[in-house]
Amino acid sequence: MTTYTAPIRDIRYVLEHVTPLRELTALPAFAHAEPDLVAGLLEEVGRFSAQAIAPTNRDGDQHGATLDGDRVVLPDSFKKVYDQYVEAGWGTLQHPTEFGGGGFPLTVANAAKETINSANLAFSLGPLLTTGAVYLLTHHGSAEQQQTYLPKMVTGEWAGTMNLTEPQAGSDVGAVTTRAVPADDGSYRITGQKIYITFGEHELTENIVHLVLARLPDAPPGTKGISLFLVPKFLVNDDGSLGERNDVSVVSLEHKLGIHASPTCVMAYGEDGEGAVGYLVGEPHTGMRGMFTMMNDARLGVGIQGLAIAERAYQQALAYAQERRQGRGPTSAPGEQAPIIEHADVRRMLLTMKANIEAMRALCYANAHALDLAHGADDPVVREQQQKLADLLTPLSKAWCTDLGVELTSLAVQVHGGMGYVEETGVAQHFRDARIAPIYEGTNGIQALDLVGRKLPYDGGAYVKGVLGEIRDTVDALPEELGTVAVNLGDALDALQEATDWIFAQRETPNEVFAGATPYLRMFATVVGGWLLARGAVSASAAIASGDTGTFDAEFLQAKLTTTRFFAEQVLPTVRGLQPSVTAGSRDLYALTPALLAP
Amino acid sequence: MTTYTAPIRDIRYVLEHVTPLRELTALPAFAHAEPDLVAGLLEEVGRFSAQAIAPTNRDGDQHGATLDGDRVVLPDSFKKVYDQYVEAGWGTLQHPTEFGGGGFPLTVANAAKETINSANLAFSLGPLLTTGAVYLLTHHGSAEQQQTYLPKMVTGEWAGTMNLTEPQAGSDVGAVTTRAVPADDGSYRITGQKIYITFGEHELTENIVHLVLARLPDAPPGTKGISLFLVPKFLVNDDGSLGERNDVSVVSLEHKLGIHASPTCVMAYGEDGEGAVGYLVGEPHTGMRGMFTMMNDARLGVGIQGLAIAERAYQQALAYAQERRQGRGPTSAPGEQAPIIEHADVRRMLLTMKANIEAMRALCYANAHALDLAHGADDPVVREQQQKLADLLTPLSKAWCTDLGVELTSLAVQVHGGMGYVEETGVAQHFRDARIAPIYEGTNGIQALDLVGRKLPYDGGAYVKGVLGEIRDTVDALPEELGTVAVNLGDALDALQEATDWIFAQRETPNEVFAGATPYLRMFATVVGGWLLARGAVSASAAIASGDTGTFDAEFLQAKLTTTRFFAEQVLPTVRGLQPSVTAGSRDLYALTPALLAP
Repeated sequence: MTTYTAPIRDIRYVLEHVTPLRELTALPAFAHAEPDLVAGLLEEVGRFSAQAIAPTNRDGDQHGATLDGDRVVLPDSFKKVYDQYVEAGWGTLQHPTEFGGGGFPLTVANAAKETINSANLAFSLGPLLTTGAVYLLTHHGSAEQQQTYLPKMVTGEWAGTMNLTEPQAGSDVGAVTTRAVPADDGSYRITGQKIYITFGEHELTENIVHLVLARLPDAPPGTKGISLFLVPKFLVNDDGSLGERNDVSVVSLEHKLGIHASPTCVMAYGEDGEGAVGYLVGEPHTGMRGMFTMMNDARLGVGIQGLAIAERAYQQALAYAQERRQGRGPTSAPGEQAPIIEHADVRRMLLTMKANIEAMRALCYANAHALDLAHGADDPVVREQQQKLADLLTPLSKAWCTDLGVELTSLAVQVHGGMGYVEETGVAQHFRDARIAPIYEGTNGIQALDLVGRKLPYDGGAYVKGVLGEIRDTVDALPEELGTVAVNLGDALDALQEATDWIFAQRETPNEVFAGATPYLRMFATVVGGWLLARGAVSASAAIASGDTGTFDAEFLQAKLTTTRFFAEQVLPTVRGLQPSVTAGSRDLYALTPALLAP
Repeated sequence: MTTYTAPIRDIRYVLEHVTPLRELTALPAFAHAEPDLVAGLLEEVGRFSAQAIAPTNRDGDQHGATLDGDRVVLPDSFKKVYDQYVEAGWGTLQHPTEFGGGGFPLTVANAAKETINSANLAFSLGPLLTTGAVYLLTHHGSAEQQQTYLPKMVTGEWAGTMNLTEPQAGSDVGAVTTRAVPADDGSYRITGQKIYITFGEHELTENIVHLVLARLPDAPPGTKGISLFLVPKFLVNDDGSLGERNDVSVVSLEHKLGIHASPTCVMAYGEDGEGAVGYLVGEPHTGMRGMFTMMNDARLGVGIQGLAIAERAYQQALAYAQERRQGRGPTSAPGEQAPIIEHADVRRMLLTMKANIEAMRALCYANAHALDLAHGADDPVVREQQQKLADLLTPLSKAWCTDLGVELTSLAVQVHGGMGYVEETGVAQHFRDARIAPIYEGTNGIQALDLVGRKLPYDGGAYVKGVLGEIRDTVDALPEELGTVAVNLGDALDALQEATDWIFAQRETPNEVFAGATPYLRMFATVVGGWLLARGAVSASAAIASGDTGTFDAEFLQAKLTTTRFFAEQVLPTVRGLQPSVTAGSRDLYALTPALLAP
């Protein structure tokens, strides 16, 4: 079995030196999130993740979720740890205090989420979806809906799900055909089938609140005709007790490459009669607006999954590299086998993982930080600017961190050699689990289109130019000690700037831009990752110079300068190599007919 | 179920325009391998792979190899198709005619192997190991051993295995402890346990010939004390009939991430008595020499696996992209969902796969071509030079093609969106299967060390400089039509040249070189891939200009210019991005103590 230790020290480093929590706690909205309180809370959730959740990961992979009639059966270990999770209140952190939430910044809640994701990705998906549903109801639900559902959902006593996808409507959500017909009592009757519904059915909670995209009879076609409905598994009586079973049920479970213990359900609504009872959330035909509200949070959540699974795999690779002896290291005595961590190539793999993970963490936490300021800042101008920043960073967090999740778990497998390919070792599970994250919650291709098609045009391009200018300011202000960081970040930024200029010059021919959107996203995210590490390094370097290193050992802060330099010198140079793919346009992509593409 | 079509047209393109088969058939050794004969043979084996083997792939993945007592049970479909394989003589192609082989160039045999690997990677491993064993016995076996074993092994009626690894002896083969004690009759008694033995036990064949590394009682430590033994599952009587069961048996099977139907065995030798009966192959203590003889062939074989699995996954992604409709394409009518192949980002994924696969194929076939010339050329100087070329290309073929095998099967999963993560779709199997190839037959880290540590120093560095000079000549001679190829290949070559110069300057500090060996290998292989594609494009372009396009449509040759240009413009620029990782040295890799690497 593989162990996991919550990287609290690394997390606290980000919250102190990269994207400071004190900027949030200075605001009235988050005044209660004092550093000591947060530190204690992170220690505690980290312990819970490591000691209670992490041991269920293997069990979940091996036994998975299974269907028994219309019941979804999860491993026994899941129910127990889920109850502990509810009991401890780990689900409540970022939710509004008026519904029983902790009112903590998302940044703090996401730090907790990181550790839970690392501990058991499949398990964490239940809470993730519940959080999304809470978020949606908080922003779009009626007062009555909020009162009825939120208190139980915030704690996790009831779960939530998101029902978007149908066989013909995946990335193309506008193609949804599930129907909603008004009933006499003001509710609706929902009929249709949804696929890929994560935790669509299970018995961890006494009720499940499904949020379902469907069309009203008079709906216009496309995304503008989609409405959002709340469909509880058990109807809720006026006194809050559970009533009748609603006409919604699981039809089948997918047999997946990974996250075996996360039930991926085909859900049927209204199979047995005139439709499942549903309640309209928000105005008719505005379902997509609700989805967009939630999307930043959910997509960032998936980015954190990429980070979290990479961290877990890294820890396992590191442990193995210290334990496994093979060959001679640079300083081994003759005839003695060295731990493989002594071999430069193994070190390279470990450092590559570590430096990228630190950049991923910096990005995800900066993204949450921006969302927190967007919600909690006093100044409306700041709120607007930070919302734009969050909007810009979200596709980067989601796509880059999940692509790296796959790449870095693959490196962790490689560190294990033959043992990495044997399932008992456990590292292959991380590789399998990680592979979902580039796909769901908007494929990474969709993220890239979102970046170039929706985010770059903000303020006619002025917004993104401002961000690139901020990065330039950081480069210009880097101390001499971080000279190679300045050079490499500066050069990567130049490449990004040139690619961005090229994109703006193609306004009239969007498909030319779409052709290079994926490598452009990678360029952008890599630069932002390097920028955030550099910001942290500046702060850490100043702390070391001042002699007051606060919470951290000087040695630890020094190590952050090393990983920042590694990232700058060895990862950032790849950015320029991607630029030609961005600016090549679509010509060669469409040059071959299907007959010529085929063997 | 997924279908597979052998890409015979693409294979023949390589054999005509990239690394011409006619250069081989001009030699007496391969004179009988006439183009028409080879073309027919490839068509036939391609059909066999597609129609007989490919349908067993899913079955093998789902049912896998299982252990029943000391029997390994494979899916029923395997025995049937294996018998057909033996019957058709597909195992004999490259083996010497004197033992019943076809005497074809390895290039041709490898083309056949590519299609078999694509059809069912797990299945193909049995024949792969048999081929390796044949190769070894052909070069190092005694006349008697050859007469006794080779005729049956060449056809595949008997299988062969390679037994190197022990728990403490993986990459560090010198740590082998299996013992061999001389018996009175001139044979030996072998005692020990071997792990990761591919097709170590099965009932596809009536006998299995194990080649086993072990130590004689007087053996010096390390690799210089390793001897090679032949240990048949059933002893062979003087008349060639099968005799007593030898004391070798399977202890357990590994439960692996992929290639489920390839039994990965723990093998016990001499558990029941005084040792398994074995026969010394070659001289005492020269076992590693035998292994090295075989290694080029086996490592290239694994490189072809990376190519083959990527091709299979590409074909599946291409089919899905034409069938699946989602969203609007650049030219869709309003309200109409376009096949996703119309989306630029999907096209990018497909072209990325296709261009890389073509480069991988060019590399593997050029590698085989060099081996063929090394064995078959009349001029001993040519033989020597071509052996060096093969030695240089082998780590590139093995590591680059298998890393790309993982990356490209991952892209194929991505093209499928959510369906890619569902096992029934079949593409996830390719992703799982592909992940073994960077590990076995020398991890890719070992390949990189082999490249910088053993191959670059050939002729004091003059050899590799000569090869880079040849690439430069190609760049200089590129026609105007391929101008961007010249620019990009030239620039990537400059970067490779600079990195190579840096490496030669570090002779005294090998660990500085080892630190960047992996990115250096990737640089080198990418440049060679681009070079070979460019050579093909020059030839194809000349054929188009001449109006005589021979076997191929002008349109098909034109498509090769497109993929060459795509590779040059979009893949080659990544080479320079890797250079800083090569020349960074080891400082940052060793800067962090384990305590600072840990969470």
